[in-house]
Amino acid sequence: CAITPSNQANNIAYLQFKKETAAKQMMIQDDNDVLEPPINFSMVDEGIFRSGFPQPPNFPFLKTLQLRSIIYLCPEPYPEENLEFLRSQNIQLFQFGIEGKKEASSSAASSIPKQTILEALKVLIDVRNHPVLIHCKRGKHRTGCLVGVLRKFQNWCLASVFEEYQRFAGAKSRTTDLRFIETFDMVGQRDCLYGIIHHYYRLAYYASKKRSLILYTQAQQDMQTHQHYKP
Amino acid sequence: CAITPSNQANNIAYLQFKKETAAKQMMIQDDNDVLEPPINFSMVDEGIFRSGFPQPPNFPFLKTLQLRSIIYLCPEPYPEENLEFLRSQNIQLFQFGIEGKKEASSSAASSIPKQTILEALKVLIDVRNHPVLIHCKRGKHRTGCLVGVLRKFQNWCLASVFEEYQRFAGAKSRTTDLRFIETFDMVGQRDCLYGIIHHYYRLAYYASKKRSLILYTQAQQDMQTHQHYKP
Repeated sequence: CAITPSNQANNIAYLQFKKETAAKQMMIQDDNDVLEPPINFSMVDEGIFRSGFPQPPNFPFLKTLQLRSIIYLCPEPYPEENLEFLRSQNIQLFQFGIEGKKEASSSAASSIPKQTILEALKVLIDVRNHPVLIHCKRGKHRTGCLVGVLRKFQNWCLASVFEEYQRFAGAKSRTTDLRFIETFDMVGQRDCLYGIIHHYYRLAYYASKKRSLILYTQAQQDMQTHQHYKP
Repeated sequence: CAITPSNQANNIAYLQFKKETAAKQMMIQDDNDVLEPPINFSMVDEGIFRSGFPQPPNFPFLKTLQLRSIIYLCPEPYPEENLEFLRSQNIQLFQFGIEGKKEASSSAASSIPKQTILEALKVLIDVRNHPVLIHCKRGKHRTGCLVGVLRKFQNWCLASVFEEYQRFAGAKSRTTDLRFIETFDMVGQRDCLYGIIHHYYRLAYYASKKRSLILYTQAQQDMQTHQHYKP
């Protein structure tokens, strides 16, 4: 089925509505529903979350995020109960199998493959996949590298990127990961990545313009109504 | 000036539009504009951010968040250059003067006043103030307590609330703060806080319903157009 500008605009408005609903669901929980976010859980940006491996007790919390997709950064197959949860919630799984080597075994070289992180980054910045949760096993190294590369793409200074990485890695912070983030060539990738962004930027612009026109018409009608009811 | 349902709906749509724009601005930065988030910066939830004290080099980054307000948790007057930035960006300042005592000096008792945190929480969950940045001096203790109380309100289990507090406080984690968060009586406050949420929930529902109707009409028009152009 072909995607027309109008149903793309509808999709964006629908996504926005879904996100609003999710935020409200999070707020209006019953007192008895205690929610357990996955370990090392945090919001990264609008529609982007990160965590360690989600366990079944975390599923009620994950439901409140109304995820569209999960970026899973380990080579191990996804557990059946997690797959079942994804099916029930209509969440798409993107798996990028990156080995979780110990720092010592990889000596000075990073175990994080650049090309795989680049492919994961493309999925990550594509708003059609939002809201998206990135996770590996503990949400420290592989997830930290992908988020670090996203921050570079967002033009964060390296000091802030490292500070964020270390907040999640804690005592397990790896110099090889920091070096990976630092040397990741963003300049060469920008055109390709901007292509994804600009594509959706145009759609969002189209959608928001249409909405502004509607609001403008609505505002004019309201003004007339107010004049009508003026004493 | 009276707030009518229609301009409330417009306000919500406008806020949504502003947020979308902010997300895009963050993505589409020039290569040379390196952004410096304030120390200990993070997104807490939809429209809620936290950090340490913002310095002038952080202002270009803060611009990308398109903040509506700042919740400042220290008793010291706000610096003139920060006030100037707030004026230029039309950001409202909510100051709650909480002393930043050392843990030792307060013995077993917490130095965080419950009533002040409750008032700050009311400002925090009011979506009219979003996007909002919470900050104190280092974004660890006072900010950590307010975010912790927000998480309790969101029904997070205490283990996750503490994990998040400690991620930001690091080695400076204070048992008195954790005890403050644990003993903060959320049950007694829920009705009052829900009042704020439900109020805006109704407005958001009204606004989204109106938008759905518009999109429905639009979709029908598109369908007709497509039929018209069918070979």
